[in-house]
Amino acid sequence: MSGGCPYFEKKHLLFKSKLLLNEEEADESQKGINKASKGGIIYGDYLQLDKVVTAQVLQSELKGNKIHDEHLFIVTHQAYELWFKQILWELDSVREIFISGHVRDERNMLKVNTRIHRIVMIFRLLVDQFSVLETMTALDFYDFREYLSPASGFQSLQFRLLENKIGVPDNLRVPYNRRHYRDNFKGHESEMLLSSEKEPCLLKLVEKWLERTPGLEGDGFNFWKKLEANIFEGLCLEKKKIAKMPDSEEKEEMMEELTKQKELFTSLFDIKRHEHLLSKGERRISYKALQGALMIYFYREEPRFQVPFQLLSNLMDIDTLMTKWRYNHVCMVHRMIGSKAGTGGSSGYHYLRSTVSDRYKVFVDLFNLATFLIPRHWVPKLDPNEHTFLFTAEYCDSSYCSSEDSD
Amino acid sequence: MSGGCPYFEKKHLLFKSKLLLNEEEADESQKGINKASKGGIIYGDYLQLDKVVTAQVLQSELKGNKIHDEHLFIVTHQAYELWFKQILWELDSVREIFISGHVRDERNMLKVNTRIHRIVMIFRLLVDQFSVLETMTALDFYDFREYLSPASGFQSLQFRLLENKIGVPDNLRVPYNRRHYRDNFKGHESEMLLSSEKEPCLLKLVEKWLERTPGLEGDGFNFWKKLEANIFEGLCLEKKKIAKMPDSEEKEEMMEELTKQKELFTSLFDIKRHEHLLSKGERRISYKALQGALMIYFYREEPRFQVPFQLLSNLMDIDTLMTKWRYNHVCMVHRMIGSKAGTGGSSGYHYLRSTVSDRYKVFVDLFNLATFLIPRHWVPKLDPNEHTFLFTAEYCDSSYCSSEDSD
Amino acid sequence: MSGGCPYFEKKHLLFKSKLLLNEEEADESQKGINKASKGGIIYGDYLQLDKVVTAQVLQSELKGNKIHDEHLFIVTHQAYELWFKQILWELDSVREIFISGHVRDERNMLKVNTRIHRIVMIFRLLVDQFSVLETMTALDFYDFREYLSPASGFQSLQFRLLENKIGVPDNLRVPYNRRHYRDNFKGHESEMLLSSEKEPCLLKLVEKWLERTPGLEGDGFNFWKKLEANIFEGLCLEKKKIAKMPDSEEKEEMMEELTKQKELFTSLFDIKRHEHLLSKGERRISYKALQGALMIYFYREEPRFQVPFQLLSNLMDIDTLMTKWRYNHVCMVHRMIGSKAGTGGSSGYHYLRSTVSDRYKVFVDLFNLATFLIPRHWVPKLDPNEHTFLFTAEYCDSSYCSSEDSD
Amino acid sequence: MSGGCPYFEKKHLLFKSKLLLNEEEADESQKGINKASKGGIIYGDYLQLDKVVTAQVLQSELKGNKIHDEHLFIVTHQAYELWFKQILWELDSVREIFISGHVRDERNMLKVNTRIHRIVMIFRLLVDQFSVLETMTALDFYDFREYLSPASGFQSLQFRLLENKIGVPDNLRVPYNRRHYRDNFKGHESEMLLSSEKEPCLLKLVEKWLERTPGLEGDGFNFWKKLEANIFEGLCLEKKKIAKMPDSEEKEEMMEELTKQKELFTSLFDIKRHEHLLSKGERRISYKALQGALMIYFYREEPRFQVPFQLLSNLMDIDTLMTKWRYNHVCMVHRMIGSKAGTGGSSGYHYLRSTVSDRYKVFVDLFNLATFLIPRHWVPKLDPNEHTFLFTAEYCDSSYCSSEDSD
Repeated sequence: MSGGCPYFEKKHLLFKSKLLLNEEEADESQKGINKASKGGIIYGDYLQLDKVVTAQVLQSELKGNKIHDEHLFIVTHQAYELWFKQILWELDSVREIFISGHVRDERNMLKVNTRIHRIVMIFRLLVDQFSVLETMTALDFYDFREYLSPASGFQSLQFRLLENKIGVPDNLRVPYNRRHYRDNFKGHESEMLLSSEKEPCLLKLVEKWLERTPGLEGDGFNFWKKLEANIFEGLCLEKKKIAKMPDSEEKEEMMEELTKQKELFTSLFDIKRHEHLLSKGERRISYKALQGALMIYFYREEPRFQVPFQLLSNLMDIDTLMTKWRYNHVCMVHRMIGSKAGTGGSSGYHYLRSTVSDRYKVFVDLFNLATFLIPRHWVPKLDPNEHTFLFTAEYCDSSYCSSEDSD
Repeated sequence: MSGGCPYFEKKHLLFKSKLLLNEEEADESQKGINKASKGGIIYGDYLQLDKVVTAQVLQSELKGNKIHDEHLFIVTHQAYELWFKQILWELDSVREIFISGHVRDERNMLKVNTRIHRIVMIFRLLVDQFSVLETMTALDFYDFREYLSPASGFQSLQFRLLENKIGVPDNLRVPYNRRHYRDNFKGHESEMLLSSEKEPCLLKLVEKWLERTPGLEGDGFNFWKKLEANIFEGLCLEKKKIAKMPDSEEKEEMMEELTKQKELFTSLFDIKRHEHLLSKGERRISYKALQGALMIYFYREEPRFQVPFQLLSNLMDIDTLMTKWRYNHVCMVHRMIGSKAGTGGSSGYHYLRSTVSDRYKVFVDLFNLATFLIPRHWVPKLDPNEHTFLFTAEYCDSSYCSSEDSD
Repeated sequence: MSGGCPYFEKKHLLFKSKLLLNEEEADESQKGINKASKGGIIYGDYLQLDKVVTAQVLQSELKGNKIHDEHLFIVTHQAYELWFKQILWELDSVREIFISGHVRDERNMLKVNTRIHRIVMIFRLLVDQFSVLETMTALDFYDFREYLSPASGFQSLQFRLLENKIGVPDNLRVPYNRRHYRDNFKGHESEMLLSSEKEPCLLKLVEKWLERTPGLEGDGFNFWKKLEANIFEGLCLEKKKIAKMPDSEEKEEMMEELTKQKELFTSLFDIKRHEHLLSKGERRISYKALQGALMIYFYREEPRFQVPFQLLSNLMDIDTLMTKWRYNHVCMVHRMIGSKAGTGGSSGYHYLRSTVSDRYKVFVDLFNLATFLIPRHWVPKLDPNEHTFLFTAEYCDSSYCSSEDSD
Repeated sequence: MSGGCPYFEKKHLLFKSKLLLNEEEADESQKGINKASKGGIIYGDYLQLDKVVTAQVLQSELKGNKIHDEHLFIVTHQAYELWFKQILWELDSVREIFISGHVRDERNMLKVNTRIHRIVMIFRLLVDQFSVLETMTALDFYDFREYLSPASGFQSLQFRLLENKIGVPDNLRVPYNRRHYRDNFKGHESEMLLSSEKEPCLLKLVEKWLERTPGLEGDGFNFWKKLEANIFEGLCLEKKKIAKMPDSEEKEEMMEELTKQKELFTSLFDIKRHEHLLSKGERRISYKALQGALMIYFYREEPRFQVPFQLLSNLMDIDTLMTKWRYNHVCMVHRMIGSKAGTGGSSGYHYLRSTVSDRYKVFVDLFNLATFLIPRHWVPKLDPNEHTFLFTAEYCDSSYCSSEDSD
């Protein structure tokens, strides 16, 4: 954008603090010495480039042995941190919409979904970004890595904040050398982390929102009860059909499979089992929220659920991309420092590998629900004339304006 | 890399200013308060994150109307500028190797080629990076673009330096609203630009290097003379073959085509025509350099030419990616501000479109040489027993150490 | 997916034509000879790999001079054609939803938008795919390009169908060597192209849909009239504000700019001017459709407009990516055959460059509307209590089932 | 390329089987009915599109329930198989160069490296290609997955060939449900796999090549002995330096670390340990080959080692990208069918996860060598005047022509 970005320049525009300039005149205004005098701002100042592009100090140079590739190392990490900042910016704004209750006004769903999607696009870039650092070989890295001690990526405040705010739970983190991740941070930073653990994370906010999914009401459409009835009726019909088949190995297999299916779905409707899985960290959201998610899956084409369905997809994308990022990171580390297999001590490489795990997938329930899909004709029917609630969105009068303001 | 980068952490390493720590101890050293006391550096300080991730000040917020998406706009441009800095870093180091004559020591070719290839990889990322900013719509942009005036991407010092150092010639630049690009800069920056125009650019350095291609020597292999002879002999044989065909429309066509081919190659060996094309800017490198490039093309598999051939390919990649970057930029501008067609005044959109042009392809000759390819059996034969110069690389005793030092 | 795709295998699933197998048993069923006897299908047969991966016949080999890289050339083009087939598949399904009127049932908007977005993702891949063919140099290509004559990418039926079905108008195509594009095709293919020109293209279908945008009704919300009133009132207030300023160069400039703004917006509300631009091909959709698009832009956060707004963005993405594809193509051609500058005759390179043009942007109006953005407070207010139509989606009873069936 | 590929069309070229056509005439030749009569080939026939784009038969449609998204599923897998074919093409050609001994002629190194790099670029595309299939949701997939049984990606012949030819060893494969991978294939295909296991794989060929690295000769430069001497001398000096320090915790730590370093390097020079690691599959190449690789690492800038060093990097890239491909596959499977946690039976998901392992990294030694890097001044010195062998490439007279022919 930067190099010759005229839409950037276009801004001189119409309603510039009531300073109406046309294009030629805007250009005029850039001429010579009196540019600043017109009160505008110039590119380098706007972007604070005096800070950003002067922040590359090579430790190797300071220590009298300037190594060319350290510059790449610094710039790459700074670029990661810049984008982490942007992700936090989006994440905080979305969390704010949920926390303030503005999400009840469904006009805000576009905003929520767009910003979550933007995080997806940033992570996609971050995954690709490894290809640049990979132009540095292990040997190039070796030449300066000694100077960096004891600095460590574990000390990236923003990445830890990001994990916390999305919802990586403290108790599922893989410990590194028996130390708590927060011990890498001191004073102010440690407090920021602690407070980010206490604030409602995206996972918890989405959970609350899913619990309010229209159609779950026991005195209304009562999706969950209807679904249970349909599934077991379907399985029963299936059983009868199989029973009528002449005896054969195939028939036996089908019967066995049917039994397994029944067990599977019985477990789905068993709240005790849900609580058990929750306690083990194998499920992360409430039973009600799980129902909401499944409802959105099955009725995703209903007008009110179209954007919510996109949102659930985007949340899975974030999870997937974060683990891909972790995995790409592992691959790079393997190339840079080897596996140190046999040298004893849990290595950084092996630690990192262990974080490429479903434990770090925050929205793991949204993936695992794929286990409980059913044929379309088992899904409880919605009559659009009767069940108009899926056609009519809600808004929130009072909060609307404030929502606008807050943004 | 940042979030949990253990190879980064690995650094506690072996030979750390003679401070030998093992892994566990290095981790020990991170504990608590006395981390700094051991004289090391921590992640955030190393990367100067206090400068980099605090440099996002929204003009819209300063003016009392905070617009969420301005943050993305700032971060994206800062990321571009960070990478421009890295490109300049690589470019300057490569230019230094050429200028100092270290390129004569062929051990330095790997370094040159690797760094040029790194620039390629960065540009590839920069082209992809548009996908993030494209999550902002024209309407989102409209909300804050007024506050940016008169800041403009035209004011990106680093991008202009980069163009100059690669070799975009001043006289081929498309003027924007009849103003010289340097007028967008004042004082110190304007001087930096002027001096970058005067320093040898990559194009000129590559030209000098190509002129020294082994095999061009008139009193040696004399590639150019041999090539000329072979081509015209080949065309002559072709003509005889066609002449023997029975008369037909096809024969006539083939004869006409042959005539055109002859004209084409006659022009290649006409130094006057070369000078003419040079003067018009349609060619950019000397006649001798052109010969060197074609020689490298034809004998690319010879040991000494393998890396040089890769280098020429990478230079074309840079050109291509820069124009793709420009074109992606054009596309984004079209979406953000429209074409303003019909409103009068050369718009930024139309200006930018005009820079997506072969005028801005610095290494255009390397592309255009594809016009002069010939069948393999027309290429002058090299006898590996006789022409050993393509098997034996040169080194430069005295310069070698200094090269090591300089890096 | 292919190499070890177990979800592919998972399918042995529950309800497999009433053949219920469990996982282990499914695996059992793959054992040995009796696999087929169970009536299933195996991977290679399913994908017809006997056709797909045997379709690589090198012309160079047929002519006795096998050139290694021709294989890459063939595979790359086949991959392009495979994806073109998929794009046509999505395009036809979306067009069918529009043509049949099922789009009136807003439950189908998710499907429409998802499929259009899938086309976007495919084009993104196709743009990236050039990086593989770019591993072939001009010299490698030269070795076999003679054997391909007179085959030409101009003869890609699917690409032309795709252009026609999206909406590249015949009269805006750049002619190539004074010939109509359809002349490259004979018999059946030529008829398919002709008929694709006559069928309603995506552009025309979207146009009709935009014309029905709720809120445009003259006897209802009457967006267009309200908008006109607001804009001119806004400009008038602006003028008064400027008039009160003390005389200065700045004031004069602002007045001039204001005048231009007024002219700009006057032109927007001038239907005659619209008809004129239509006739020149500078606009492509009806006046009513233009109004609908602008309405969706301004009220994109209203529940009924969220997905339509995404759809408009995705349509622009398609346009942008198609031109990026064309541009990447141009870059590759330049590298492969040079520009042939000076040899006379309009070259393929120059022809292709000319197609990277706004003439080939089908949804150019959606981009150009960015010229007519206004401050948020100028947008006519919608009272959610009064204007409930933006909160309540429509469905289409009768068509619903058939829609399900048709898909 | 396909859609309007004029360089494709350019082919009508110069020396087309002695058929010289110019551009206009070539176009003439495309006119009307007599196109074929001129003996050329047209685009669709050349690419055998009648086979490739007609090979999409939906099982769901055959079974009377056409599901739109199955088309995407088929096309995606076909695209994967097309590219697998191309990878095999490159792989076989490279293996042939090694097997035939043509690699001894160092003129062939460019070809080898370029083709290996092309495989890298294809894998990069294949990793990205998941983004297209990811536009299909678990629910879309559910609608047709039943029809695919018992087809399975495990049955991809080409992928297994590819693994074997690169060098995934049979005994390190993770078994799936206690069955040998070859049991998924019958007759001819099973034989092809068996024979691919017996042919020399890329790993073994590279191993042989590394063993011949110039400089390893015991009666020559004797790199390994010199290296051992230097390292232990270096460690010894280090120890003396530390010993002179005043007693402190730091001193103790440094001493401990030094001891570990000594152990590490002692293990490197212990051939028995190497044999042990080989037997466990933790190392894969011979001791001599390991030495060759390390020599290339340390002297990568020497002219003869520049391209070999690139080759080693590219081989690591292939490994990395194959595991990334596997991991992306795992992520997609998780989304498509869930983890089936709790349903019993080793699921496809869990199986796939287990293949994202260093067991499947063929060139794992090249990564792990990063553990044995040393300071530059410990690397045995090469005097360019004395050790000219690193400046002078070899060629192979007799084989050269045949190499040319064979390609």
